[in-house]
Amino acid sequence: MFIIGERINGMFKDVSRAIKEKNKRFIQELALKQIEKGANALDVNIGTAVEDPVSAMEWLVKTITEVTEITLSIDTTKLVVMEAGLRYCKSKPIINSTSADDEKLNNLIALAKKYNAGLIGLTMSNRGIPSDANSRLELAMHILTRWQGEGLLIDDLYIDGVILPVNVAQAQCPEVLETIRQVKLLSQPPPKTVLGLSNVSQGTKYRSLINRTYLVMALASGLDAAILDPLDEELIKAIRTAEILLNKTIYCDYYLKGRK
Amino acid sequence: MFIIGERINGMFKDVSRAIKEKNKRFIQELALKQIEKGANALDVNIGTAVEDPVSAMEWLVKTITEVTEITLSIDTTKLVVMEAGLRYCKSKPIINSTSADDEKLNNLIALAKKYNAGLIGLTMSNRGIPSDANSRLELAMHILTRWQGEGLLIDDLYIDGVILPVNVAQAQCPEVLETIRQVKLLSQPPPKTVLGLSNVSQGTKYRSLINRTYLVMALASGLDAAILDPLDEELIKAIRTAEILLNKTIYCDYYLKGRK
Repeated sequence: MFIIGERINGMFKDVSRAIKEKNKRFIQELALKQIEKGANALDVNIGTAVEDPVSAMEWLVKTITEVTEITLSIDTTKLVVMEAGLRYCKSKPIINSTSADDEKLNNLIALAKKYNAGLIGLTMSNRGIPSDANSRLELAMHILTRWQGEGLLIDDLYIDGVILPVNVAQAQCPEVLETIRQVKLLSQPPPKTVLGLSNVSQGTKYRSLINRTYLVMALASGLDAAILDPLDEELIKAIRTAEILLNKTIYCDYYLKGRK
Repeated sequence: MFIIGERINGMFKDVSRAIKEKNKRFIQELALKQIEKGANALDVNIGTAVEDPVSAMEWLVKTITEVTEITLSIDTTKLVVMEAGLRYCKSKPIINSTSADDEKLNNLIALAKKYNAGLIGLTMSNRGIPSDANSRLELAMHILTRWQGEGLLIDDLYIDGVILPVNVAQAQCPEVLETIRQVKLLSQPPPKTVLGLSNVSQGTKYRSLINRTYLVMALASGLDAAILDPLDEELIKAIRTAEILLNKTIYCDYYLKGRK
């Protein structure tokens, strides 16, 4: 699976502090550590407590690209901050994210074209997050149709079924799994699927256990990518084992060793 | 899910010795310990190294039913040994198992009727274990048709997709998941699905990790029951978490505590 490391996010106190203090070394080490543990891309989010978001995003992206050319997923709801991040990426970036609302969708598709970026499309709109798989799929189809209508590559589109915390919206957890399965039937070839994994365990007591159990179920449902914490060793072990059991990587006795 | 404890099996050395020495206490404690850890039924298998299999099975079942009336899954390939076990069960037993071969199927369906027992039907025949989901489903359909043709309850039939060790038949692991999903479409209501879980990790280095990862994927695919080791704590935690995330049991903060 395609692992997008979640740790460079201003919602974490250590990262927030590093952004404030312009502590390059902390950010760069966090980037490299995530890559070492298996991240195929890094999410970049400045958080909410920043005075000048545009220059914070610029600084973050420049700081990371000094030490790695890995794919960056620029994670912000603000258009100007998004463009500030995309501008300094050294590899093809991912835009994280759009909803299914036309204004937002138009703006972010325009940015995707300008910067040759992938796009994460959330199955939600200004009416909120639907409670069932079918309504999520309608929104996914809307995003997909707009994306393909612009002649963009299906392979660059990631549909995110929007998982909510299990302690808030438990009934939606299987609905999101069903969404992942059904997205794979929307087109041929289908768009990719992605999840913001850690959200499922927000506010719960057994976060790591809930995260890895849900991820394994999502992988069995066809998930392609997830934004997650690659520093969670049990999570990475579960991913590597699921990949073996889905016959996506070849089994060898010590498949957990000697891997990134 | 319906957990069938696998530990009372003569293939384990400690159990084999207990059978030989007629050590009632060992067997009874192993029965109660599995139930305490979450087993809803117990598999009973005398193993292969027994001189008088009929009286060994009788002794085992009598020994267990002295301390519990839980469902027993009588696990043997020999018809006389099967009947020896079924005869002494105090609750409705499960016959483990038949293949899709007509002679075997006829014999075991006759026993199921005589003893009002459930039946585990393996998707294999005298031609072997098919390599893909479709061929497994054909065999499942054959067993199902015979079962329903006798007017037996669909709820008492368990289809086992026959998982092989991942280091032997890796490509079949996702095929068995697909089999589980498709069995649920064979009839309305569908038969139950079951797996002999530990087989998937036979001969591998990370047995518990492989077992629990595969089980979580199977649960996401609709699995109802499994023969497994309830003394594996990480496995039970994964099951309880998967049940929460599939919205089958209600979430509470300490859902792992105070449970069997």
